[in-house]
Amino acid sequence: MDKPYAIGIDVGGTNTVAGIVDKRGQIILSGSIKTGKHPNVEDYLDELTNLLNDLIEKTATKDQIKGIGAGTPNGNYFTGSIEFAPNLPWKGVIPFAQMLEDRVGIPVALTNDANAAAIGEMTYGAARGMKDFIVITLGTGVGSGIVVNGQLVYGHDGFAGELGHVIVRRQNGRLCGCGRAGCLEAYSSATGMARTAREYLELKPDVNTRLRDIPIDDITSKDVFDAAMEGDEMAKDIFKFTGNMLGEAFADFVAFSSPEAIILFGGLSKAGELIMDPIRESMEKNMLPIYRDKVKLMFSELKESDAAVLGASALGWEVK
Amino acid sequence: MDKPYAIGIDVGGTNTVAGIVDKRGQIILSGSIKTGKHPNVEDYLDELTNLLNDLIEKTATKDQIKGIGAGTPNGNYFTGSIEFAPNLPWKGVIPFAQMLEDRVGIPVALTNDANAAAIGEMTYGAARGMKDFIVITLGTGVGSGIVVNGQLVYGHDGFAGELGHVIVRRQNGRLCGCGRAGCLEAYSSATGMARTAREYLELKPDVNTRLRDIPIDDITSKDVFDAAMEGDEMAKDIFKFTGNMLGEAFADFVAFSSPEAIILFGGLSKAGELIMDPIRESMEKNMLPIYRDKVKLMFSELKESDAAVLGASALGWEVK
Repeated sequence: MDKPYAIGIDVGGTNTVAGIVDKRGQIILSGSIKTGKHPNVEDYLDELTNLLNDLIEKTATKDQIKGIGAGTPNGNYFTGSIEFAPNLPWKGVIPFAQMLEDRVGIPVALTNDANAAAIGEMTYGAARGMKDFIVITLGTGVGSGIVVNGQLVYGHDGFAGELGHVIVRRQNGRLCGCGRAGCLEAYSSATGMARTAREYLELKPDVNTRLRDIPIDDITSKDVFDAAMEGDEMAKDIFKFTGNMLGEAFADFVAFSSPEAIILFGGLSKAGELIMDPIRESMEKNMLPIYRDKVKLMFSELKESDAAVLGASALGWEVK
Repeated sequence: MDKPYAIGIDVGGTNTVAGIVDKRGQIILSGSIKTGKHPNVEDYLDELTNLLNDLIEKTATKDQIKGIGAGTPNGNYFTGSIEFAPNLPWKGVIPFAQMLEDRVGIPVALTNDANAAAIGEMTYGAARGMKDFIVITLGTGVGSGIVVNGQLVYGHDGFAGELGHVIVRRQNGRLCGCGRAGCLEAYSSATGMARTAREYLELKPDVNTRLRDIPIDDITSKDVFDAAMEGDEMAKDIFKFTGNMLGEAFADFVAFSSPEAIILFGGLSKAGELIMDPIRESMEKNMLPIYRDKVKLMFSELKESDAAVLGASALGWEVK
């Protein structure tokens, strides 16, 4: 029987959201639990299993579910485990896929959030019909999901696609949460952008900007966005700086896999042309001539509130 | 019938070498013609066809040849064409694969030299059994062939894998033949290394080195190698500088595809530990912690004089 549904689960630091999804990428029914409520992963999985059984009962039968896909922090596709995730309450290596499968009786596959986003774009979003593209997730951090020849790039150990941690500044680079310096993420994440704002405010004390109305340590990328939308020049310069870093890095990514498109996903991508214009200019300027004017820059076409669940569900269609 | 032979053709700027290869990677018979002799590509292909017919006649029958693979400068696998190759006498786009196939009556596939090297390593060399690895060719330039999930990465247009042209120095980078500045190739090719030697000699006039015995504009990477082998400190420092650049770049490549191995191929790789030690040190130091101590650094296992023909022949097995 051709099974009409897949389940997508987005395991976030705060909430875990699960949804039943049909083949056109419609979420039929969804629900959520608190990720941090249970210090013991067994208790968490019991509550998640109750949620899934409830969702299934209200919409379908277990036989109609092709598979379950989960997008999790530090999720390893090859092992089905969550490995040393700093933002989750369970330490060490958690064999998440197997534990959930044992409880629900439906096959489970797992990957990290950015890879789930890439599969989601390929299945339901901006990358439909593409065989070579890169999804860059711009949020608290910078993540990536890379597709080559129609397949997600996992690498030999399942850890491929950490493009937030290529080095964009070799001298005097900003310290990064990974322990190194000069990573793309230290400049082009939402937190990196807030850092740029603080640097600009300190280095340019004479420039008039409404960003000075906010206590300097409280400034967020949202504040910079709001200011830029009202025409604030410093805020616009901060977007240019951020986009320039991304464009430089993208030019090198293109030399690696020559993708048809690079797709922006996540919070910062809501800034629209404010971020896209400087990325495009910098990418084209820094690219090897044979690639110029050939790589599409696009925004995700998945509705943001649904994107994580849809991305994870897309993996559910592929579970064996 | 299971066809026992493939033909490999290496189209170089000076010579074109062709060989009949068996399944174990033995070259049964080979021959060559001068690439530059014919300003007209039709004449060149006629002579190449005569060579191939001669090789086939002496060893086998046409029916026993599975296919012909060619490694050429600027070869595009998707189109089967040589596109704007600066070092060949024929300008513009040459539909090489089709033109040769029409003459010989055996299917022909074509790719660039570095991709041919990667397929060669996977079929007969250091990458047998690997599904994720990168071959870096260190010669006059720096090229690359990337394998992900057992397949060569061609990208959406056939031009993926120009890792000699990622930017390793964003400020005051060396000018590169591609028209940009700071490319890996400008530092880590044989010519880049000779350039480093000239810079060191000028910047360090007080350092005693046998490299000063050579007219400065004549210094080659071979001279640096010879001096380093005799213990010359400046020559060893030049290898350290070159290897350091490669290691920094490799650390970023690993963040992309998390390969099981990076394999060095071509002239400079003959320097052995002189080049490998600083690469390894720099790569490990610059890598994201999750990748450390996991990526093998290896030398090509194809005999150098045969490598290009073997690599090309490996493509011949896959021709459809």
